[in-house]
Amino acid sequence: MDQLPRFTAAAVQASPVYLDAAATVDKAVSLIHEAAGHGAQLVVLPEVFVPGYPYWNWTMNPVQGSPWYERLYRSSIDVPGPQVDTLCAAARRAGVVLVIGVNERGAHSLGVLYNTLLIIGSDGELLGVHRKLVPTWAEKLTWTGGDGSSLRVHRTAIGPLGALACGENTNTLARFALLAQGELVHAASYIALPVGPEDYDMADAIALRTAAHSFEGKVFSVVACSTISPEIVDLIAGEDDQVRKQLGRKHSALSGIFGPDGRPVTEPLIDDEGIVYAEIDLGRCIQPKQMHDIVGHYNRFDVFHLQVDNRPRGPLSFTSAPTSTPHAPTAPREDQ
Amino acid sequence: MDQLPRFTAAAVQASPVYLDAAATVDKAVSLIHEAAGHGAQLVVLPEVFVPGYPYWNWTMNPVQGSPWYERLYRSSIDVPGPQVDTLCAAARRAGVVLVIGVNERGAHSLGVLYNTLLIIGSDGELLGVHRKLVPTWAEKLTWTGGDGSSLRVHRTAIGPLGALACGENTNTLARFALLAQGELVHAASYIALPVGPEDYDMADAIALRTAAHSFEGKVFSVVACSTISPEIVDLIAGEDDQVRKQLGRKHSALSGIFGPDGRPVTEPLIDDEGIVYAEIDLGRCIQPKQMHDIVGHYNRFDVFHLQVDNRPRGPLSFTSAPTSTPHAPTAPREDQ
Amino acid sequence: MDQLPRFTAAAVQASPVYLDAAATVDKAVSLIHEAAGHGAQLVVLPEVFVPGYPYWNWTMNPVQGSPWYERLYRSSIDVPGPQVDTLCAAARRAGVVLVIGVNERGAHSLGVLYNTLLIIGSDGELLGVHRKLVPTWAEKLTWTGGDGSSLRVHRTAIGPLGALACGENTNTLARFALLAQGELVHAASYIALPVGPEDYDMADAIALRTAAHSFEGKVFSVVACSTISPEIVDLIAGEDDQVRKQLGRKHSALSGIFGPDGRPVTEPLIDDEGIVYAEIDLGRCIQPKQMHDIVGHYNRFDVFHLQVDNRPRGPLSFTSAPTSTPHAPTAPREDQ
Amino acid sequence: MDQLPRFTAAAVQASPVYLDAAATVDKAVSLIHEAAGHGAQLVVLPEVFVPGYPYWNWTMNPVQGSPWYERLYRSSIDVPGPQVDTLCAAARRAGVVLVIGVNERGAHSLGVLYNTLLIIGSDGELLGVHRKLVPTWAEKLTWTGGDGSSLRVHRTAIGPLGALACGENTNTLARFALLAQGELVHAASYIALPVGPEDYDMADAIALRTAAHSFEGKVFSVVACSTISPEIVDLIAGEDDQVRKQLGRKHSALSGIFGPDGRPVTEPLIDDEGIVYAEIDLGRCIQPKQMHDIVGHYNRFDVFHLQVDNRPRGPLSFTSAPTSTPHAPTAPREDQ
Amino acid sequence: MDQLPRFTAAAVQASPVYLDAAATVDKAVSLIHEAAGHGAQLVVLPEVFVPGYPYWNWTMNPVQGSPWYERLYRSSIDVPGPQVDTLCAAARRAGVVLVIGVNERGAHSLGVLYNTLLIIGSDGELLGVHRKLVPTWAEKLTWTGGDGSSLRVHRTAIGPLGALACGENTNTLARFALLAQGELVHAASYIALPVGPEDYDMADAIALRTAAHSFEGKVFSVVACSTISPEIVDLIAGEDDQVRKQLGRKHSALSGIFGPDGRPVTEPLIDDEGIVYAEIDLGRCIQPKQMHDIVGHYNRFDVFHLQVDNRPRGPLSFTSAPTSTPHAPTAPREDQ
Amino acid sequence: MDQLPRFTAAAVQASPVYLDAAATVDKAVSLIHEAAGHGAQLVVLPEVFVPGYPYWNWTMNPVQGSPWYERLYRSSIDVPGPQVDTLCAAARRAGVVLVIGVNERGAHSLGVLYNTLLIIGSDGELLGVHRKLVPTWAEKLTWTGGDGSSLRVHRTAIGPLGALACGENTNTLARFALLAQGELVHAASYIALPVGPEDYDMADAIALRTAAHSFEGKVFSVVACSTISPEIVDLIAGEDDQVRKQLGRKHSALSGIFGPDGRPVTEPLIDDEGIVYAEIDLGRCIQPKQMHDIVGHYNRFDVFHLQVDNRPRGPLSFTSAPTSTPHAPTAPREDQ
Repeated sequence: MDQLPRFTAAAVQASPVYLDAAATVDKAVSLIHEAAGHGAQLVVLPEVFVPGYPYWNWTMNPVQGSPWYERLYRSSIDVPGPQVDTLCAAARRAGVVLVIGVNERGAHSLGVLYNTLLIIGSDGELLGVHRKLVPTWAEKLTWTGGDGSSLRVHRTAIGPLGALACGENTNTLARFALLAQGELVHAASYIALPVGPEDYDMADAIALRTAAHSFEGKVFSVVACSTISPEIVDLIAGEDDQVRKQLGRKHSALSGIFGPDGRPVTEPLIDDEGIVYAEIDLGRCIQPKQMHDIVGHYNRFDVFHLQVDNRPRGPLSFTSAPTSTPHAPTAPREDQ
Repeated sequence: MDQLPRFTAAAVQASPVYLDAAATVDKAVSLIHEAAGHGAQLVVLPEVFVPGYPYWNWTMNPVQGSPWYERLYRSSIDVPGPQVDTLCAAARRAGVVLVIGVNERGAHSLGVLYNTLLIIGSDGELLGVHRKLVPTWAEKLTWTGGDGSSLRVHRTAIGPLGALACGENTNTLARFALLAQGELVHAASYIALPVGPEDYDMADAIALRTAAHSFEGKVFSVVACSTISPEIVDLIAGEDDQVRKQLGRKHSALSGIFGPDGRPVTEPLIDDEGIVYAEIDLGRCIQPKQMHDIVGHYNRFDVFHLQVDNRPRGPLSFTSAPTSTPHAPTAPREDQ
Repeated sequence: MDQLPRFTAAAVQASPVYLDAAATVDKAVSLIHEAAGHGAQLVVLPEVFVPGYPYWNWTMNPVQGSPWYERLYRSSIDVPGPQVDTLCAAARRAGVVLVIGVNERGAHSLGVLYNTLLIIGSDGELLGVHRKLVPTWAEKLTWTGGDGSSLRVHRTAIGPLGALACGENTNTLARFALLAQGELVHAASYIALPVGPEDYDMADAIALRTAAHSFEGKVFSVVACSTISPEIVDLIAGEDDQVRKQLGRKHSALSGIFGPDGRPVTEPLIDDEGIVYAEIDLGRCIQPKQMHDIVGHYNRFDVFHLQVDNRPRGPLSFTSAPTSTPHAPTAPREDQ
Repeated sequence: MDQLPRFTAAAVQASPVYLDAAATVDKAVSLIHEAAGHGAQLVVLPEVFVPGYPYWNWTMNPVQGSPWYERLYRSSIDVPGPQVDTLCAAARRAGVVLVIGVNERGAHSLGVLYNTLLIIGSDGELLGVHRKLVPTWAEKLTWTGGDGSSLRVHRTAIGPLGALACGENTNTLARFALLAQGELVHAASYIALPVGPEDYDMADAIALRTAAHSFEGKVFSVVACSTISPEIVDLIAGEDDQVRKQLGRKHSALSGIFGPDGRPVTEPLIDDEGIVYAEIDLGRCIQPKQMHDIVGHYNRFDVFHLQVDNRPRGPLSFTSAPTSTPHAPTAPREDQ
Repeated sequence: MDQLPRFTAAAVQASPVYLDAAATVDKAVSLIHEAAGHGAQLVVLPEVFVPGYPYWNWTMNPVQGSPWYERLYRSSIDVPGPQVDTLCAAARRAGVVLVIGVNERGAHSLGVLYNTLLIIGSDGELLGVHRKLVPTWAEKLTWTGGDGSSLRVHRTAIGPLGALACGENTNTLARFALLAQGELVHAASYIALPVGPEDYDMADAIALRTAAHSFEGKVFSVVACSTISPEIVDLIAGEDDQVRKQLGRKHSALSGIFGPDGRPVTEPLIDDEGIVYAEIDLGRCIQPKQMHDIVGHYNRFDVFHLQVDNRPRGPLSFTSAPTSTPHAPTAPREDQ
Repeated sequence: MDQLPRFTAAAVQASPVYLDAAATVDKAVSLIHEAAGHGAQLVVLPEVFVPGYPYWNWTMNPVQGSPWYERLYRSSIDVPGPQVDTLCAAARRAGVVLVIGVNERGAHSLGVLYNTLLIIGSDGELLGVHRKLVPTWAEKLTWTGGDGSSLRVHRTAIGPLGALACGENTNTLARFALLAQGELVHAASYIALPVGPEDYDMADAIALRTAAHSFEGKVFSVVACSTISPEIVDLIAGEDDQVRKQLGRKHSALSGIFGPDGRPVTEPLIDDEGIVYAEIDLGRCIQPKQMHDIVGHYNRFDVFHLQVDNRPRGPLSFTSAPTSTPHAPTAPREDQ
């Protein structure tokens, strides 16, 4: 118990080098090293940081967005793959636990894209590949949903770590599925959303969900959100002034670190690029559990039974592992 | 759909006539009529309003609290019973849907007390009797937990209504169980808690949970909290200044009404007695569902399967329906 | 066997009275009687005919479409409900088996809309309520997906009848699930889609899928598609000439009747309102089964095992049926 | 053991009223009563007796045979169905155990035909419906194979009874599957096959397989074969003299009763219509088991493990039994 | 992603040197080199090209066809074997991926023939040996069905390649099993079928299935069909004018290349010998996936679970690999 | 395929030089050369020819038979061993494939005797050592059963060859285990059995089983049976006339060669010493497979799964490979 981790966490608010995976990974690596230089042992980067968010789904109609879809598909990454290798190497060199969002190409079917969070250990091991379960509203035009196999809490150097992407932090059951595995540090990656409904304040919506998860679970949350660079505005809005205005809307991004009482540990960063740091002492999660321990004494598992189907779900399954021999004999064979 | 309810809700912040059920019920009836006079169609009263909260659990040790326990037991009410009849009659006369917290004596065993919310229709029908599932921390010294049979959403004149007591609003799964039944109006009853841990701000903790539930579910929440009258202070603290000081701590009670965006509809009331009113238009719950509908398209019920054991749970059960032999145990019944 | 049905089928190509459920149902009733007057015993109407298709998802961005979503939600129908009663009565009076698409409001959660096909017997019984499993591309902005419980073939007066909505006819497995239940008459409801990608010819895409399903299964297919009335153009396009032009694109709707050899029985109708009739003799489905019977001798169910999870899938489940008593006693009970 | 059945068995050699199910069933009923009149308690009738064998598969090419296929399909029977009811009633009235072959229409898919043996108890109960697993050579043009679910031995009034159709009696594993269930009386139904290869002597081939099964298993076998009436010759051969000659070939049908030593109990009947009777004393099966008991001491089940997949195999399976309610609610439901 | 293959595909329409495996392989080699000379990187040859299709099953009755069966058996090839070596060498020398149909003799049982597709890589490796699962109608007189072990998609130089034989392209589940493995190029090998039912137009039936598979899966399909040479007509028909006429029927063969929109990329070739070439750009498969991705976002794998039993299926299995020692000692051994 | 073997087979009917292994082997060698001189390429000799069959088990009680058992044990042979070497040399010199039955002493335990068939290639290699799985009835007094490791079909100069001893030919599963490995020539070795039950006709029982195996599997069978010399009668019967009479019973031995239609190729030899020759053309096995191929298209390996435990089975096994410690048990080996 003396060794309950204390560490510095870094929530990175930044914009990608839009639709350029290699350049964005380079930028990510540089941010990782900057954060590590400030003592960070946990670095959280935004949702689909590599290589950016498909804003066209919100500003164009689907047919207009279609060539953009192909462009995103071609600039997305494979997992595993060289970009992942670069990120793992950076985490290992910097000695940090890393959470970062990427656009992942599905291996089994051309055109499948996932909104994926990579969780990488400080030894450079790829610990988790979480594919967002349900893309949010207009995002459904781009991403395929993941499955329950990635709803995992990872034992890391900085404690038991879980991660959800953006709107998943609204999903009561997804959040609970992580808390129930002993999550103590929750990473939440978001994108700046200036283009949603007018009465939807993205920064407030991020803060509320982060606070609520921390309070309900008595955990620390590290939330990282992307920003929208002038380059993105130029590319998406072109000459369209209304879209330019939309993309420039304030209070659309928030990054920060919240404690188990639901309050921010340090002042969150709103809209601007930057890194928020805070000291996290997991020991602070103990006493509040006396009041509410919703994965312990303060719940009723005789009443509530939540089952998570964590089987990988593919388009078909084989009875046995395919063999590599081209010619499967029909003659007597040896059973497995 | 034109008839999606619009109505005035009233969140009553008040203190009971401490440990006097009849007088407290009279006070409740009077508050109901006051609210109805202001046009309210839904009135929510605090947790265990009849006849008050056992603060001694927080300020005395259990042995000191023991005679107080008996005092509370003797002043609690039976459900059904005359006090319930009075409340039902008041709701019918005022034409309001009513949620009110009571200390309920268990019918099957002497000394059993439940922290119970009564939900009463505007026609005076007793719709629901929800017994708090897990008493919070020091409350465990007084109350027995309920079961899952009361986790119900009720179809009322003001829309589908659910209710949870105090710390239950922290319970991710309990909240979801109501949302999953189509809850659109959530009633949350609390007590003022100045006597908890020093770094625990009760008003903030109420506001956060209410906002989060409203935002996650895209519902309206009406939260009502009790206050601590000088009479209670005198009785509980007596000459003890430290306890007096504790009981006088500020920011310990909050009542109000929150909308589906997680924001208060009108300014909440903090610490003082009073009634908060707000206009509720359930039509406002439609459009936000496009963004997140965690009981619809924005969840994954192939991944998450939540089963609620809603069977009444008694101290024993019979394999088959008992026969009508002379000596039958108390109120046996046959389940479906 | 002598009584293998022979009958006249009618595929109705028409536009709804846009966003007006009652008026559209009236129009549907009148079309049903017209078709019955020409001897039709099976009448198939377009997808989401009541009260129309959300074209804004294709011509606006999601934020612009948001108030339209609410408008559609409010003008959609409940199942069961009065509009369904009217349709059932019309089917009974006309003596026809009826397939018709509607926008159905979900009963359990405000804001849930399903793209639903109603299958109604010639005795007026509501036989099936099939909710489209996956909305297609931009449609994901409006509809929630159904579950497997409605993938049923219905024994009707005109033979075993199955129905799928629009893009579902592309889904190899959904189609097979109907064939495997002995489907002989396949109803496919579509909407006119002039607003999709430029190189996507909707009429051809309808014809190809209909022909392929008929050929693979050796069944008759009756395909009905909606049209776009000037009223819809005015409402959706307003002053926008480009959208006007898009909505006016030719070869975007096709209705007709195809035989078990994959060829149309009569000339399909393209783009215009009207009713296509054809004589169907189910006896023609017998001999082609000698060549390919993919649900019989021409498949390998030792190799391919397809399991359809046909359980209704809700946001939560209860261990036992909720009782209607408000006050569930805690006393002894009988176990199941 | 004293009650080991002794009884008279009847093997009926006859031709159907070709392609007329009702008339053939009438003929079958009359034969059943004739046999019962001679004291028979077990009556075995030929393979696909109702309403006859598709000889065209051997004398025509497949395209020529195609309309004949439809004709057979239309004149085949449903199981259960009225013809089965008639047969069950006859068995009950005559007090005989009955085995009879029929052409069965598959219930789930138009055009599916099975070569089916019905096993009916002396109380008129339909005990078994065995669908021939693999149609023989040219028969593949007509019949779909059954599954392992019908490989059953039935406990009847005349002892444990199994049945296989024609070429199945060549299948070592199918035969063993019956013996392994304690079969003591084996019913084998055949059709006259004058139209096979010239060097294939059908009567000898029937006798050899019947003798071998009886000897290997130490059981009694009752084998019944159809004959070819002039009516069938006229219909199939028409004016074609070569086919006439083929159909008239001798030594193409054999019916009789064989004992556990592999020898016929009475002289078999070759080619002609008639009924062969024999007394069967199951007590004779005991002593030969000392020499070879291939389902007991004379086998090595540590070396040979035969597993029979007896699951009914359909084109798809459902996770739960389909409900009869047309409208499957998405709201909370009760689990099974 | 930049390297998504673009290549020339060749669909070869030709007749074999009938019943002469060596000469047919020589002809195949020469066609491969001709196609490679025109830049082809994928060459698809017809079904059972080596050494031809058993037309007698359609024009003779089974007894007449019996000596032809032996003739085919004796002229068929072993896999692996010298003819396969020749084909592999040709593919390597020409640098093409090759799909070609052969009659394969089963290794384990005299008389077993498979209708087999060989898939050979451009490096000459034998990648796949797919045995047709169910022979079609009259073909059942000749071929034994394969098993699920060969339902594989192969990673080749020209992209992920799957192949099915003739009527298998009608089998919804077989087709899906390939798409589910990421198939982007589908090879379909057919034979000319002038001898089927009169109302069965083989060329149309090939085109429809090819178009439908391409459209459903958003893949390219290369379909190659054999033709009937005068030599075949002479051999099969002899003096029989009716069979001569049948074998000469038009519109019985079609070869070509179809795109992911279901349309032919170049004009298909009907009836005549020749090679159809087309440029394939797999990049064209991306954007259509937004509309329907039946192995991704546009399916429901929570509803549909397809399991493919891909275990090689032989007549028996051994517990352990047979040893080569003639004398298996009875002495102590090590357990697994 | 042109090289499908044609050859002369020889079935030797003879009696041993009773209980004298060396003399019997000499006689065997001489018979082998006689047969080879008549052109035989396959020579099958009787069961336990070396050095004879323990008739005392049928004519004495076990205590009387006990010294005879020791006499047999002492006159039996070791495998490998000098008598085996002699037989192998003879086969090589004569250029014949040889099957011969011997009494084999178990290597691992004094007193263990096996009823063993040796299969020897025409190059003199000892291909198989098959120990009879279950001794028949009275034989259980003498022999220990073998295991499944020897149920092998051997690729020989005269084709795929399997062998079973006497009553094993009654065992449906043992026979199938050989057919399933592609057996085309079946060798069956028997002993003359005049001493069994009175109603058991050994010659008929041999003929029936041989015919049935040939017909079921479409294979050739070569069956060889011993005879009883006057020397044996004298030794076993002594002065006992009843035993003399028993041993002299007719129709107790049969040797011959049967074809794939179940008929003898030449007239079998009954009771007398001699050699039966027949020409075998394995090409005759092809066409009958069209009718029934029970190891191919005419079986259902999805329904029937036969697993043969072919692991050598010793008196004990080790969890891991024994180390090379001084005292290691006889011939331990590590299984795969």
